[in-house]
Amino acid sequence: MPAAATRRTTPRALTRWALSLALGLGCLSAVWAYDAPVEKKTFQMQQLTTVGGKTIKDVRIGYETYGTLNAQGNNAIFIAHFFSGNSHAAGRYAASDAAPGYWDSIIGSGKAIDTDKYFVVAADTLVNLSPGAPHVVTTGPASINPDTGKEYGMGFPIVTIRDFVNTQKALLDSLGVKKLQAVIGASMGSLQAMEWAASYPDMVERVIPVIPGGVEANPYLIETLGAWAAPILSDPKWNQGNYYGKEAPLQGLAEALKLVTLSSRNYGWAESTYGRRWAAADKNPLDAWSNQFAIEDSFAKVSAARAQQADANSFLYLVRANQLFRVGQTATLEEGLKRIKAKILFVPAKSDLLLFPDYSRKATAQLKAQGNVVETFEIQGDGGHLDGVFLIGQAAETIRAFLTR
Amino acid sequence: MPAAATRRTTPRALTRWALSLALGLGCLSAVWAYDAPVEKKTFQMQQLTTVGGKTIKDVRIGYETYGTLNAQGNNAIFIAHFFSGNSHAAGRYAASDAAPGYWDSIIGSGKAIDTDKYFVVAADTLVNLSPGAPHVVTTGPASINPDTGKEYGMGFPIVTIRDFVNTQKALLDSLGVKKLQAVIGASMGSLQAMEWAASYPDMVERVIPVIPGGVEANPYLIETLGAWAAPILSDPKWNQGNYYGKEAPLQGLAEALKLVTLSSRNYGWAESTYGRRWAAADKNPLDAWSNQFAIEDSFAKVSAARAQQADANSFLYLVRANQLFRVGQTATLEEGLKRIKAKILFVPAKSDLLLFPDYSRKATAQLKAQGNVVETFEIQGDGGHLDGVFLIGQAAETIRAFLTR
Repeated sequence: MPAAATRRTTPRALTRWALSLALGLGCLSAVWAYDAPVEKKTFQMQQLTTVGGKTIKDVRIGYETYGTLNAQGNNAIFIAHFFSGNSHAAGRYAASDAAPGYWDSIIGSGKAIDTDKYFVVAADTLVNLSPGAPHVVTTGPASINPDTGKEYGMGFPIVTIRDFVNTQKALLDSLGVKKLQAVIGASMGSLQAMEWAASYPDMVERVIPVIPGGVEANPYLIETLGAWAAPILSDPKWNQGNYYGKEAPLQGLAEALKLVTLSSRNYGWAESTYGRRWAAADKNPLDAWSNQFAIEDSFAKVSAARAQQADANSFLYLVRANQLFRVGQTATLEEGLKRIKAKILFVPAKSDLLLFPDYSRKATAQLKAQGNVVETFEIQGDGGHLDGVFLIGQAAETIRAFLTR
Repeated sequence: MPAAATRRTTPRALTRWALSLALGLGCLSAVWAYDAPVEKKTFQMQQLTTVGGKTIKDVRIGYETYGTLNAQGNNAIFIAHFFSGNSHAAGRYAASDAAPGYWDSIIGSGKAIDTDKYFVVAADTLVNLSPGAPHVVTTGPASINPDTGKEYGMGFPIVTIRDFVNTQKALLDSLGVKKLQAVIGASMGSLQAMEWAASYPDMVERVIPVIPGGVEANPYLIETLGAWAAPILSDPKWNQGNYYGKEAPLQGLAEALKLVTLSSRNYGWAESTYGRRWAAADKNPLDAWSNQFAIEDSFAKVSAARAQQADANSFLYLVRANQLFRVGQTATLEEGLKRIKAKILFVPAKSDLLLFPDYSRKATAQLKAQGNVVETFEIQGDGGHLDGVFLIGQAAETIRAFLTR
């Protein structure tokens, strides 16, 4: 607080400062939650055989850990990330980082996912959306194919959520993890959590799917994901995925990311964030085609900026992986469901317009019908799907308690 | 039933046939509901001055009527159509037509909107989506500008829902209508109904906005509409709107129409209609990029077919008109709201993911707060927005009763 130090500080101001710190700036505590900055590491596998029967050589995924694994290797919790996310769930890589990891409010010393008690592992997925971003390590279409010395492009094998989980399993094996107290993830991370429960039922005690997709991708989600991908396929610069070393299809990718944001939000949020304001106060959209509403202008700018860090082919691989999701990746849903032993805590967001709360309601009925223990905590808010990321704090005490059940 | 006639017909089969006719094929009765086929007519205005202050010469819109105007000119009901619709709300143009107008279940002799009692008028809007379709008459970007002898393209003035209503008012004046017992419309038609109430409060007794957009376009709708338009703007064949006489931007238009259908449906409908079936039983989407899910294949085919009848520029004009919607087209919402005198019956659809039931809930609170009479009937179903078109029959008796209040 250097600015405060130069002002004359009254006792009342000091009290106010302490109070605001305690109430509003709780995230600052994350800086002190770990002795050292979070370290991003790389896990390597010689090869992965995919669900589709293909082989990927020299698989590399990034990961980070918080807390310490116990001697029995049974105090671990795995955090799976969402579509546009990465392993950075908590803490800071450096004290100077502008913000901590996305779920820092629930992961750390004394927090709901208590790093004094649990060994928390978070990893980048295969085909991560942003292979070129700092701190992201992934294997996907933008990686060099060891057999050709060139980027895979669309020749990379189609992968599934199960393939993500299998690389994570290999990572956890390498770390000495024997038992997962829980797998937690938001959105696409929730699919991975459910897949963990179906794929490795004896290893997973609990799963906490947040803003959950249920137990398989609903066809409405399949079509929505396809609609996200369409602007990339239509961009001539995409060129069947052969754009590495050339100009990337940034316009198509930005349009795709715009659709992702739209799906991830809600009309309540739009109303309070933008209203019907124009992008420029003197430029009425009634008067010219280039005059826009503020929400359109903002979405365009944010998406164009985000496209700079993302990879169009990786976007397409993520779309397909999500479309293909069915627990266990089995021929029938029933087969996959039957494999699940873990206790489940679904954490849907009430205003979610992408992975609707009905998806976990339906899954709850199916899982309870076969005898699973299923609980639900619904996040309140009008922010849409992203409430599962930003308002996870609402579920903190429920998660803390669920981890001891 | 020529196929049935060639089979041996048992008494039981006859009974079954009669029963299925009575239960399932009620729409056939529309053939007999009018003495004569419905006639599509054209209304012409020498010129229209738009809300944006521009002049459009030689405005032509198509319309059709059912029933007879009384001597006082006060038994009229106006039907406004939805985004991709046109004036054909009831009856058949010819006995051989495959289907009657979209709301035939509630418009006709003895039906909720009883053509023995009311003079029902339905008209095409300005900038109708399908200016080239049979029976559509509209003025918009695909029309010939009398000043240049060429299509307007994107030089056509930006128009608003209020401009639609003003052409409809001129039409009704020409027909001798003095009083509207009601204005009814689904989706974009609901915006026109509300706009009628704010624009001509002394002429409109009642409005029935079905799958209603409330009293102004929510910014989430503004962005959604912008997302629909994006594939057209990205299609090189769109060429800033100069494609008449050349190849039309059908790919962009088809992508746009796909998004419209997606927005107009619901996950419940997708689940029961498509499930997770593949487009071809032996082509697993896990195995190749060209292998698709059935829902993707179906949306692509239907949208490509629909694009053949639609006009890309008109799509963009409709998008902007909907984005600009605020009752009364006044500087503040309050001004527009205060003009409304009509009794209002909102008919939202429970599973609507485009014009959310919350939109009419909020509008109801605002209107009731200023003393308006507002009722609501919610259509049950999991078909999404389109339930307001296909399941309007649920609201039939409520509409019938509301018309007498």
